[in-house]
Amino acid sequence: MARGKRRANKNTARPSRAVNYSQLTHPFIPQSVLTEDAVAGVHDAALRVLEELGIKILLPEAREIFVRSGALVDDDTQMVRIGRDLVAAALSTAPRSFTYKGADPVRDQDYALGSLIFAPGGGCPNVTDSIRGRRAGSAETFIETTKLQQSFDVIHILGPSAEPQDIPVHERHLFMMQQQCMLSDKPVSQASRGRAQIQDGFEVLRLARGLDEDAFGENVWAKTIINTNSPRMIDNPMAEGIIDFARAGQLSIITPFCLAGAMAPITVAGALTLQHAETLAGITLAQMTCAGAPVSYGGFSSNVDMKSGSPAFGTPEHVKLMIGTGQMARHVGMPWRGAAGSAGVVADMQSAGENHMALWGAMQANATLVLHAAGWLEGGLTFGYEKFINDVEALQVLAELAHPIPQTDDDIGFDAIAAAEPGGHFFDNPHTMSRFQTAFYDPLNADLNNHGGFVAAGARDATMRATDIWQERLRDFQAPTICEPVKDRTQVFIDRRIQEGGATVVG
Amino acid sequence: MARGKRRANKNTARPSRAVNYSQLTHPFIPQSVLTEDAVAGVHDAALRVLEELGIKILLPEAREIFVRSGALVDDDTQMVRIGRDLVAAALSTAPRSFTYKGADPVRDQDYALGSLIFAPGGGCPNVTDSIRGRRAGSAETFIETTKLQQSFDVIHILGPSAEPQDIPVHERHLFMMQQQCMLSDKPVSQASRGRAQIQDGFEVLRLARGLDEDAFGENVWAKTIINTNSPRMIDNPMAEGIIDFARAGQLSIITPFCLAGAMAPITVAGALTLQHAETLAGITLAQMTCAGAPVSYGGFSSNVDMKSGSPAFGTPEHVKLMIGTGQMARHVGMPWRGAAGSAGVVADMQSAGENHMALWGAMQANATLVLHAAGWLEGGLTFGYEKFINDVEALQVLAELAHPIPQTDDDIGFDAIAAAEPGGHFFDNPHTMSRFQTAFYDPLNADLNNHGGFVAAGARDATMRATDIWQERLRDFQAPTICEPVKDRTQVFIDRRIQEGGATVVG
Repeated sequence: MARGKRRANKNTARPSRAVNYSQLTHPFIPQSVLTEDAVAGVHDAALRVLEELGIKILLPEAREIFVRSGALVDDDTQMVRIGRDLVAAALSTAPRSFTYKGADPVRDQDYALGSLIFAPGGGCPNVTDSIRGRRAGSAETFIETTKLQQSFDVIHILGPSAEPQDIPVHERHLFMMQQQCMLSDKPVSQASRGRAQIQDGFEVLRLARGLDEDAFGENVWAKTIINTNSPRMIDNPMAEGIIDFARAGQLSIITPFCLAGAMAPITVAGALTLQHAETLAGITLAQMTCAGAPVSYGGFSSNVDMKSGSPAFGTPEHVKLMIGTGQMARHVGMPWRGAAGSAGVVADMQSAGENHMALWGAMQANATLVLHAAGWLEGGLTFGYEKFINDVEALQVLAELAHPIPQTDDDIGFDAIAAAEPGGHFFDNPHTMSRFQTAFYDPLNADLNNHGGFVAAGARDATMRATDIWQERLRDFQAPTICEPVKDRTQVFIDRRIQEGGATVVG
Repeated sequence: MARGKRRANKNTARPSRAVNYSQLTHPFIPQSVLTEDAVAGVHDAALRVLEELGIKILLPEAREIFVRSGALVDDDTQMVRIGRDLVAAALSTAPRSFTYKGADPVRDQDYALGSLIFAPGGGCPNVTDSIRGRRAGSAETFIETTKLQQSFDVIHILGPSAEPQDIPVHERHLFMMQQQCMLSDKPVSQASRGRAQIQDGFEVLRLARGLDEDAFGENVWAKTIINTNSPRMIDNPMAEGIIDFARAGQLSIITPFCLAGAMAPITVAGALTLQHAETLAGITLAQMTCAGAPVSYGGFSSNVDMKSGSPAFGTPEHVKLMIGTGQMARHVGMPWRGAAGSAGVVADMQSAGENHMALWGAMQANATLVLHAAGWLEGGLTFGYEKFINDVEALQVLAELAHPIPQTDDDIGFDAIAAAEPGGHFFDNPHTMSRFQTAFYDPLNADLNNHGGFVAAGARDATMRATDIWQERLRDFQAPTICEPVKDRTQVFIDRRIQEGGATVVG
């Protein structure tokens, strides 16, 4: 409601163009980099990795769950070998779709193969913008970036972005969950940094959403990203995250970060094999913990730059790995997350190009959830405000592509063509007049003026215009309405937990 | 040969990575925006346009060709009505594939559905770079942009770019063809600005390539872009271009510039209908002139910005129109040209993003020839040197995607994974060691350093680095070897033609 009003105010000269960027499905046929034989080969090799080589699971509780379900566990070496029958059993109970819920049902996302969900650049320790420069993330920038994420419908879930490093770590998780719930009505995210923090986050979320434990468990309200320690290891906080999210009916997204040539084989096919093995291990642990728990296949593989050793994004290898990840996820029938993002340090042609390449990789791959889709610079070390705005433009263009074009006989337009003189124009054609106010995408940051108009407007490039936009959005921001008792009871809980000493960080 | 040597010299520290960017085929399944019914509907509506409404043909010679072949011609109104049987006959003689030849066979392009050919931003009256600013194209900038186009394998044919406005128009065509032939071994382009200029261009090309008229006519050595005057009109120089190129066995690419909402219906489906009708009219004229003449389907439709009236590029409508154009071209079985490009005025996030969007549209659409794929700013009013370099990076990434990934059992890498400890790494894995020097794409302009490295290197953004690259390429440029007698006889012809007064520009 508040959003609709702001949009109308901004464009008083013409009726606002109705768009639906909130719930999207993929418009394109998924593409392939692996042959069907190679898909089967990668799947089989991954099962052999789990069965013959095993995966190191540091958390005793997780090893016990594996033992109880029939895996072969060596507590001395912490190695767990998982038979392919156990993997198959897990895949048979893992749900293929579920609703990932926001505070407002218009924000709900259908998490399933075929859905297209965009998440902003997440987990960044630093932020940068043209006014204040590059600096450590803080409470202020966490609030700002959450507001910006709330401000654009095409950002479907919250990051969270811009880690608030000025808040002590033992209470930071409380602040992050509180701000997500108070500033936004979109589905929230939570880090897995130990059991106590996870449970705190769940409680803040329940209080803010007005849910008891049962109602909370009936739907997915929070997700966490589980990064395996590639190759072939899952550490304590990650295993605890899988277990606790499964028990609470919340979503864990199993995502090896397989940098080809570093923590994974250097070949695309080999990195996919290791990633597939580790993802299946995580999915299996979730299902062994609680059959039917929501869990997602995940991939975030790219290559390392052989000169600098830095992770690369938007490269051919990144795109190929994403398309291959989609093939492997579809092979086991699971919805999955991919990731876009940029290696570039500043808001320039490089970082724009890298994210566009990676976003199109996600489109080719039919990724269910595209993480780091806006604002992610330096391979995630920094959240860029201007970059975020320009990336939102890219997401809006992709969202437009997700909707079918009108193609009735009237749209095909023989009569409209007949009504235009040879060498004439269509400006005053009734076919045009009835559609011109809403026919085309209305750019957010792009300036379509010619050179003269561009210079007359101060020769402000895309970065300068993006600065105007994020400043304007923060100035005009209106949080969703949340009633006072909800705010109060959430605050009371948080105050109490801080008084109790908060929660130790693990991992 | 010269290229290989330069590449080796640049990277003496490691063996050069063998790449093939010179001949590409599309790696992705073509996508759709129209249903099959709508494709048939657009095709039928376009045939009705030609049959019932007709197209205005200004050139009497062209109308005569239409009359002789059975079209209904009204010389008073200059309207030509073309029956669907005549269109079908033309489509049955139009070749589905041919070789578009450069001076060196390694530059030859297979012009057919499935091929992927990149052409630089062409026809720009202005140029811009960070050193000298925006200015009118000149002989100097024509030479420079031709050298830059020759310098990257992924640019498959010449523009030409940066119109040399300091050369008198009656001799400009001679200069442009001469420079293309002397500075490059790639397939050349020629404008259609009247019969005399066309014939001059053919003669320069024959002299430079050492071809007599018969040998010239046996292959495609030059292409011209035929822009219809949408809606439903073909002017004199364009009709002459179609006729003369067909008679000489050279390639005309029929390309309506259907700006939806301006010179074409505002709907995607309607713009496609008009475009299809006009393209079929041009193809039919070419085949009526000379059955079997090489001719290409073409589309360059986008939308106008409803605020500024400027053509927009990289928009959702541009991408949808390109995908739809691919559907219509495949419906009639013809190879076709699409176009990328940017509306943005400077080398910034906007213009980079627009071209990436449009390039991916061309990939989705399986365009045979992608015009304006690098360096095109302001909707073609300006060729940007830095933009060109950064766009070449995008093309190289797409070229990498055009090659299949290795996916043998060894690439799938079970043994490599077995050889890496849990929580370890793959740096010294034999699987990595045997591949690390050539596994990954080697960026041209992207800087993959982290923030510290970026600052230490002078905080040079993508535009600044691109300036270094184009300066270096111009400094190191080596033209292909052309023997003196060829240079001499070409120059003698050009001098004679200039003495004779050159050739009047038409159109």
